[in-house]
Amino acid sequence: MEKVKIALLGLGNVGRGVWMILDSNKEEIVKRSGYDVEISKILVRDKDKERGVDVPKELITTDFNEILNDESIKIVIEVMGGIEPARDYMIKSMEKGKHIVTANKMLLATGGDELFEMADSKGVMFQYEASVAGGIPIIQGINESLTANKIKEMYGIINGTTNYILSKMELENLSFEEALKGATEKGYAEADPTSDIEGFDAQYKLAILSSLAFGTKIDVENVYREGITHIQSIDMEYAKEFKMAVKLLAIVKDVNGKLEMRVHPTMIPRNHPLANVYDSFNSVLVKGNAVGDLMFYGRGAGDLPTGSAVVSDMINILKLGIHSDNIQSVVKNNLWDKKIRSIEGVHSKYYIRTSVVDEPGVLRDITGILGDHDISLRSVIQKGQNKKGELVTLVLVTHRAKEIQIIDAIDEIYELRTVKKIDNIIRIEEFEEE
Amino acid sequence: MEKVKIALLGLGNVGRGVWMILDSNKEEIVKRSGYDVEISKILVRDKDKERGVDVPKELITTDFNEILNDESIKIVIEVMGGIEPARDYMIKSMEKGKHIVTANKMLLATGGDELFEMADSKGVMFQYEASVAGGIPIIQGINESLTANKIKEMYGIINGTTNYILSKMELENLSFEEALKGATEKGYAEADPTSDIEGFDAQYKLAILSSLAFGTKIDVENVYREGITHIQSIDMEYAKEFKMAVKLLAIVKDVNGKLEMRVHPTMIPRNHPLANVYDSFNSVLVKGNAVGDLMFYGRGAGDLPTGSAVVSDMINILKLGIHSDNIQSVVKNNLWDKKIRSIEGVHSKYYIRTSVVDEPGVLRDITGILGDHDISLRSVIQKGQNKKGELVTLVLVTHRAKEIQIIDAIDEIYELRTVKKIDNIIRIEEFEEE
Repeated sequence: MEKVKIALLGLGNVGRGVWMILDSNKEEIVKRSGYDVEISKILVRDKDKERGVDVPKELITTDFNEILNDESIKIVIEVMGGIEPARDYMIKSMEKGKHIVTANKMLLATGGDELFEMADSKGVMFQYEASVAGGIPIIQGINESLTANKIKEMYGIINGTTNYILSKMELENLSFEEALKGATEKGYAEADPTSDIEGFDAQYKLAILSSLAFGTKIDVENVYREGITHIQSIDMEYAKEFKMAVKLLAIVKDVNGKLEMRVHPTMIPRNHPLANVYDSFNSVLVKGNAVGDLMFYGRGAGDLPTGSAVVSDMINILKLGIHSDNIQSVVKNNLWDKKIRSIEGVHSKYYIRTSVVDEPGVLRDITGILGDHDISLRSVIQKGQNKKGELVTLVLVTHRAKEIQIIDAIDEIYELRTVKKIDNIIRIEEFEEE
Repeated sequence: MEKVKIALLGLGNVGRGVWMILDSNKEEIVKRSGYDVEISKILVRDKDKERGVDVPKELITTDFNEILNDESIKIVIEVMGGIEPARDYMIKSMEKGKHIVTANKMLLATGGDELFEMADSKGVMFQYEASVAGGIPIIQGINESLTANKIKEMYGIINGTTNYILSKMELENLSFEEALKGATEKGYAEADPTSDIEGFDAQYKLAILSSLAFGTKIDVENVYREGITHIQSIDMEYAKEFKMAVKLLAIVKDVNGKLEMRVHPTMIPRNHPLANVYDSFNSVLVKGNAVGDLMFYGRGAGDLPTGSAVVSDMINILKLGIHSDNIQSVVKNNLWDKKIRSIEGVHSKYYIRTSVVDEPGVLRDITGILGDHDISLRSVIQKGQNKKGELVTLVLVTHRAKEIQIIDAIDEIYELRTVKKIDNIIRIEEFEEE
């Protein structure tokens, strides 16, 4: 049986998972790939750092050139993350004819084109299943299993940290701050949780998924992004009253050839499958014009689930033939030009929580303004003591409206003397066709 | 752009779906595959049958040799179903170097090895995603996305007809007969529904999935099979009382190297994701030692969903390179020899519904027998009028026991003078590790 040497760039969380899987599932991997796979070099920044896995010291190096110049290394697995030097290392590896497996969402979302083109021109394979939703094979799903379809819409819970936080807020009535603290203690949130809780992580992932699903190049800046830090316990309570759940949803829709892409907290019906995705689980719902509704559900992060995607990618490269000179690029993201529909053009339903002075005529004034902007109300809830001069909470739920209409109406409503605060606005998604 | 000619064997439900997709999504398919795909021949038995699609008459033929001997036809799509002549046509096509896409579960489950080996020896590609769970990419999932894992267990709702019937029984309190009638009227059940309601369809599919997931040859006879015809409304009511749902589950587990495979009605916890798979939807839950829980959900049947899998398979063949001379077989079902654990060796919990004479001592006698066989009870419910001599319903739910113990105990219980009938036995699955 032929031996194949692999190099690992990075030995953090995912790298450790890859190592552990190659160790514990060695027999499966060897039999399924047809090769005796061996990690022969691991690139790290700090040789002395405690890694939590029993890796032979002689494999560890801090010098990338030891990997680059070793012709016996056929596959490079990049799990270091970040833009540079990951990008540089992958480019150089491909120039030397090495195949690539990467889990790098940030790099793929911002500079994927360059990498795809390089792989194409050098005739090497480039696999990146682990870059989105960890162990869930959503990229292979889009690239291989759904190619017969016009994909119309995708909805994803693709950030485990925020889903964990929102789950805790919903199920245990925690505040955002308490839930975030728990996520940090559990290791689900990083010391600086900005990338997760402000939606950047999901934004990158949605850019990648959109690019693949619609065969078009996506500028990550065209993905609207809003985090979950403004979601409060009281919003969770209202959501329950409306038989809704609050999820950080990544949404892409092709509306008459225009793509709208957005990541934001979203109220969805309680009985929808996505509402029952809890804790750090991820899930992606794809709507195709042939397949209908197709949903994937699983672990979107963690050393072993993400490592599962990385190692399966590596096995695919081996099965497709590392010696083949007939490798076809499977990445086709330049098939169509798509126009972008910005967030102002989005149609949605809205949950609007306001603090108003409890006087006769408040509701009449507000609904009057909404009516002027062609926005009709589905329901209104007023809570709070009816004491003269005190503020009460007034929650409005609208029928479908264009976001720009909502923005304009809210501006006017905020001008009303009786309206003291627009506390929160959350979009509602009920998965109807537009 | 190179033109590629395709032949379709069969123009029934799935064939019609394939035709419609190739028609409506032509631009997507051409761009994604890189080829101008054209169906040049369609084999049917009856030229004059109304097909419900607008297929040019000159494409239709009743003579397979017109396809076999046309060297310009590179891919044969087999959607006629059944063993012969489908098998013969695929064998002959591969001998001529044509690539194959098939949706034929029966043939794959019973004679797949011969086809896989033929594809391997002739260097042609053989794709069969549509053979299990329609539009859900479970085969690609197992063959490509989960290869890094030791798969431990799989649980599937893989027959849409029975899931539709059980859903109606649960949600609308219909009897089995009423629900079956509705399924027939809706076109979900065939005129002769035996294959679905007796579990044969799911048995074939589970044999295929097990073979792939565990890299081993499976004799379909080793898959235990039990249909849903014995499920009654009263069982649904008890299930609700126990916070359970009844589903026709296809289960495979690797227990210490022994495979147990079984298709039978199963009570599962109401809050488990599989319990919320309703109507004709399918879903498969895979447990891998790296990826953890991974679930797929979607349409398991129907012209377009199944056609989606067929056409995506065809695109994969085109992308992998129909001119390549370096095709590697991706079907490896001879990697391991697995012992089989027969149904008598299975460990499960059981729901047992009996009709007994309401006399003092009945329960003591029954629990005594269960105790003799090392079976402990989790709960007992007795319902019915307490009139002397009349029968009452006694429902027992056991803790985990070996099936052979249950069989032996039931035999003894049935011998009791006071036990008039063992009305039903349903296995309970709570997804714990063994």
